[in-house]
Amino acid sequence: MNGSEPDQAVVLVSGGLDSCVALAWAAAQGWSLRVLHVGYGQRTARREAQAFREIADYYCVPPDRRLEVEITYLAEMGGSSLTDPRIEVEAADLERAEMPLSYVPFRNTHLLAIATSWAEVTGSELIVIGAVSEDSSGYPDCRPEYYEAFNALLRVGTAARNIRVVTPVIGLDKAAIVRLGAELGAPLHATWSCYRDEDQACGTCDSCALRLRGFQRAAVPDPAPYRVRPIYE
Amino acid sequence: MNGSEPDQAVVLVSGGLDSCVALAWAAAQGWSLRVLHVGYGQRTARREAQAFREIADYYCVPPDRRLEVEITYLAEMGGSSLTDPRIEVEAADLERAEMPLSYVPFRNTHLLAIATSWAEVTGSELIVIGAVSEDSSGYPDCRPEYYEAFNALLRVGTAARNIRVVTPVIGLDKAAIVRLGAELGAPLHATWSCYRDEDQACGTCDSCALRLRGFQRAAVPDPAPYRVRPIYE
Repeated sequence: MNGSEPDQAVVLVSGGLDSCVALAWAAAQGWSLRVLHVGYGQRTARREAQAFREIADYYCVPPDRRLEVEITYLAEMGGSSLTDPRIEVEAADLERAEMPLSYVPFRNTHLLAIATSWAEVTGSELIVIGAVSEDSSGYPDCRPEYYEAFNALLRVGTAARNIRVVTPVIGLDKAAIVRLGAELGAPLHATWSCYRDEDQACGTCDSCALRLRGFQRAAVPDPAPYRVRPIYE
Repeated sequence: MNGSEPDQAVVLVSGGLDSCVALAWAAAQGWSLRVLHVGYGQRTARREAQAFREIADYYCVPPDRRLEVEITYLAEMGGSSLTDPRIEVEAADLERAEMPLSYVPFRNTHLLAIATSWAEVTGSELIVIGAVSEDSSGYPDCRPEYYEAFNALLRVGTAARNIRVVTPVIGLDKAAIVRLGAELGAPLHATWSCYRDEDQACGTCDSCALRLRGFQRAAVPDPAPYRVRPIYE
């Protein structure tokens, strides 16, 4: 922090639970916020963009501090159930050992590269991402060592040399994220997590399962509309 | 190399001199090649895409091993003379100490992230980029330490864990790149380097100046059409 000038942060906001709580945390630091949403041709892109706008409205982020970006090439390459209509979204398996079909290769690097370019152009020193390591689907670009390596890349790869990524919820389980969000007054009602559907959440994909279990363990009511609402406790 | 199976490589081909020679080098290794071109809203995007196609044709790369991607968000963010029409492309200054206005923040990370996702989906273990460190414009994402950091990121950030970036011309000056390209029979006539113009090269931007000086020092005729052709030796 530099005297009376608040730090500037670019916050990646997918529209999901984790990034919403990460944004609430960044707001609580008193940082001056920019919000960035990246659609990548995933099945629920429209619904997630809507969630992003509602969350940004809730935090009164002015239009010139919002950026929505569409990247099309990940869907063109395929290889993930989230972007390739020929690959079905798997039923939830919270004990799965192998990489789930929902894995989008190197996805977070695309998101962080866009955030970094925007941070450098706007003179922001912080990037906030709601990556979660433990209570998640095991994607490699959600682990702490990935963020350490990305921060090392930032130190040598930008002209500014002072940009860094912070991951406020990376070590929390979903129940702790729900509790933190509730404590901070985050607009959890506006978030969307389902990998499959846009109107009613399916309740049975990995992302719905992780979310439902998190709300149930935190004993907080989940405001999302579910087609089926399994008990995961 | 794995017995009789050639290694698979994704080669980034901008249409410029350096990436053309990097591709020639990769072809000479006997690798099985995929070529990737990324347009990012730069002034000479159309001409560079044409150069990419001619170079890919020269190496007989089949259509299903070519990928052309357009990213629009770097131009939306502005901040570089290459993507922002309100910022003029500077006249050449090969002794300039500060970062040139042509710097596109973190650009190569976007290119490498796309190459990595494509490599992971296609089972390729190598990514080739024609970055040049010394005889260049001083961009941070063209230095060897940037590529060391990116390779460290690849080891932790992909499910494959075996992808690595190679930079065959990073330590060469432009004259050595021209000589290597001529030796390897690279289609130098098809390349485009000018930052400003698409029909005749201006001859006076940093990129033209570096190229012209390289060809002159290598004593190889530069086949590009120039509006003016200063002597840089």
